[in-house]
Amino acid sequence: MNIKLTVAYDGENYNGFQIQPDVKTVEGVLNRAIEKTVKHEVKLMSAGRTDRGVHSMGQVVNFFSDTTIDIGNLPKVINYHLPEDISVVGAEYVPDDFHARFSAKGKFYRYLIYRGKYRHPMYRKAMHYPYKLNLDDMRKALSCLEGEHDFKSFMGRRAVVKDTIRRIYSIEIKEKEDMIYIDFYGKSFLKNMIRIIVGTAIEIGAGRRDIDFMRRALNSTNRKAAGFTAPSNGLYLMKIYY
Amino acid sequence: MNIKLTVAYDGENYNGFQIQPDVKTVEGVLNRAIEKTVKHEVKLMSAGRTDRGVHSMGQVVNFFSDTTIDIGNLPKVINYHLPEDISVVGAEYVPDDFHARFSAKGKFYRYLIYRGKYRHPMYRKAMHYPYKLNLDDMRKALSCLEGEHDFKSFMGRRAVVKDTIRRIYSIEIKEKEDMIYIDFYGKSFLKNMIRIIVGTAIEIGAGRRDIDFMRRALNSTNRKAAGFTAPSNGLYLMKIYY
Repeated sequence: MNIKLTVAYDGENYNGFQIQPDVKTVEGVLNRAIEKTVKHEVKLMSAGRTDRGVHSMGQVVNFFSDTTIDIGNLPKVINYHLPEDISVVGAEYVPDDFHARFSAKGKFYRYLIYRGKYRHPMYRKAMHYPYKLNLDDMRKALSCLEGEHDFKSFMGRRAVVKDTIRRIYSIEIKEKEDMIYIDFYGKSFLKNMIRIIVGTAIEIGAGRRDIDFMRRALNSTNRKAAGFTAPSNGLYLMKIYY
Repeated sequence: MNIKLTVAYDGENYNGFQIQPDVKTVEGVLNRAIEKTVKHEVKLMSAGRTDRGVHSMGQVVNFFSDTTIDIGNLPKVINYHLPEDISVVGAEYVPDDFHARFSAKGKFYRYLIYRGKYRHPMYRKAMHYPYKLNLDDMRKALSCLEGEHDFKSFMGRRAVVKDTIRRIYSIEIKEKEDMIYIDFYGKSFLKNMIRIIVGTAIEIGAGRRDIDFMRRALNSTNRKAAGFTAPSNGLYLMKIYY
């Protein structure tokens, strides 16, 4: 059977999602926990990598297994083998041709900015930015990114992809008390893309750049034309759409 | 000058608030950070102890100092000497007769219950209770605790106080998605009092006890007549009123 799992994790103590030799990654720890549960080797497919320090509320993986463990109990049994900062929060059977990455229709990422004057232990998993931000300016600037564009300017330097065209369905900014939520819906994203977009938006919101800076950065297809890379601890992979 | 600080902390890795020799406590770590900042010994007064593992959004302490550090910068300077899980989030001068504990008019505590089916890494600082709970029954049961009562039944066994009369102004239950918030407003509380009240309310909400069980527990003035002690990781000291 093809089994799909939804996985939440606190990325703080991991070297990103993707399995690598000799370092602790979410996929590595998850893979071992699943193998301990189903008692055979598994090959995990995943919806996508998340960078070091990025969190997930809805990462999706799938694997094939003939385990007889009831699908309703499977998350609990796997969670028994997982540390507190990773948890399987859903499991279901899917058709054989389901692939966590290739079947995905879209992804929802959220970036959190905590605006409180002083750092706060309970809001550590958000970027702390205690200065003025003009959210309307940020909204205006971000709107030019919606649709299909070459996002090369917003790609981490060490990324190795040739096709840098991506489609963003929408970007929304919400505010609640001292927290800002920037929600990104898109087909898929380049490495560091959301964090560089957020960094650029913050430079605009802070008044250090004009609103049109975002569009100029986009059009330049040059990483140097965009803003800084916002820290990983504010980024959450929220949901994969199929 | 008499200086009042508001302090937030994640209690997970501390043996409670109150300073003790040879173990890590919030007060111990905070005291050292303040002394490093003002460069003299200080005697901290605090609004109250919190148990091991309990969190704070609004603990209050005060101390006397002739430091010349600007009061607006003081939190940042102290925070420089504090670990990530403790943070000073406010500072102000107060009259000499202000005492963090004796001047307090009331306290607001919140208890968080996460109801998601599976444990979740991002909701670890809440009690995980994935079973049915009748919130209306819990509300009805809790209402008998409002007002002034002898709360001896809801006091931790190792507490050493003679006067167990306390006044609860109100208890409110709110629900938002998979999270339940139980808000307690009172003059002051006995050791473990809120956690035992929450445990008792959960037994009622789960249907294992009838609604009147809370009143009978209260009237018995006997710890054995009340429910279990809910875990400390769901409890937050939210605010001290002066």
